[in-house]
Amino acid sequence: MAAQPTDEILEATYRALCEHGYADLTVQDIADNSEKSKATIHYHYDSKHDLFEAFLEDLYDDYTDHVDDVSGETHREQLLALVEFSLAEGGDVPGIDFRTAMLEIKAQAPYDEGFRERLTDFDGYLADRIESVVAAGVEAGEFRDDVDPETTAEFLVTTIKGAHTRRVSVNHPLDRIRETLAEYVETRLVADGAEVTA
Amino acid sequence: MAAQPTDEILEATYRALCEHGYADLTVQDIADNSEKSKATIHYHYDSKHDLFEAFLEDLYDDYTDHVDDVSGETHREQLLALVEFSLAEGGDVPGIDFRTAMLEIKAQAPYDEGFRERLTDFDGYLADRIESVVAAGVEAGEFRDDVDPETTAEFLVTTIKGAHTRRVSVNHPLDRIRETLAEYVETRLVADGAEVTA
Repeated sequence: MAAQPTDEILEATYRALCEHGYADLTVQDIADNSEKSKATIHYHYDSKHDLFEAFLEDLYDDYTDHVDDVSGETHREQLLALVEFSLAEGGDVPGIDFRTAMLEIKAQAPYDEGFRERLTDFDGYLADRIESVVAAGVEAGEFRDDVDPETTAEFLVTTIKGAHTRRVSVNHPLDRIRETLAEYVETRLVADGAEVTA
Repeated sequence: MAAQPTDEILEATYRALCEHGYADLTVQDIADNSEKSKATIHYHYDSKHDLFEAFLEDLYDDYTDHVDDVSGETHREQLLALVEFSLAEGGDVPGIDFRTAMLEIKAQAPYDEGFRERLTDFDGYLADRIESVVAAGVEAGEFRDDVDPETTAEFLVTTIKGAHTRRVSVNHPLDRIRETLAEYVETRLVADGAEVTA
């Protein structure tokens, strides 16, 4: 599929967001990170807000593709891979600048229905995927039969979101939570004996 | 102790923050919520930033007093009371407006060492209290002997912070996480047989 002019604008938005954060960002900052002029950006998007709704939509499509790609041979491995994916840092993964900007956007959500709906989609997509992996693992006998898939998804998603917040607000390392959650999965969810065979 | 002029300014800051959020807040907004003039506020605080550092310091003193007041007859009850306190909603507890403003301030932390240090103090105070309650509970045989106090504190604090973020960003109810964490404490931490006697 040929790249659309808007693709380049959304990529420039990502770069500008990492550089300036959300609150102070202007369409000029995005133009400065783009081959397109400010006028061209305004031709495609009426306002910074419209551009950001499109940006979040694009980000969501990308996110769901990545979540769908997370795989593992067993349900235990799939769950650990989802935790790993959600708390990855370094390499190609969005860094602290981007996470900081996303936290700013989260703090806008109570005032902005469009942002809130989109963030709810992100949240729900991960929760649904975790819930279905846990449910399948319980069904297969890999996870204990007293594990409730919905509650477990609730717990893991909340902890993952908290890890992102703490990474930004108090510079708390993501890898500590990754280890803690991996241990939680192994010791509290995996059924006795399943560790060996999985 | 007689109320200081700054006490009234900090209370007005709280009200103005709930009304306007952090990013758009001006010293004039604080004056509008106060009996003090903008000039008087500037006499005590050079900038909005200085005022906010003092505000966070005052909030921290208040927070630690409240954390210290959390009590329970057993370590299990103390831990559940700390979770309850951290995820309370309604009544005298700061509402969604205040939590939203605090999330904005958290998103400022990477750019602001003063804010980051203060937020780290909040984070650490709760983590230390939870860790010591869990350690004492393991020692007393109320919690399982395979429970690691530091890891448990890490996990619970991260989940609590995630609950605050999700409450603001996707309007996810705090009481669901409160129930999930209470269940985690009862089923994963409390030692077999201890539920009955505690």
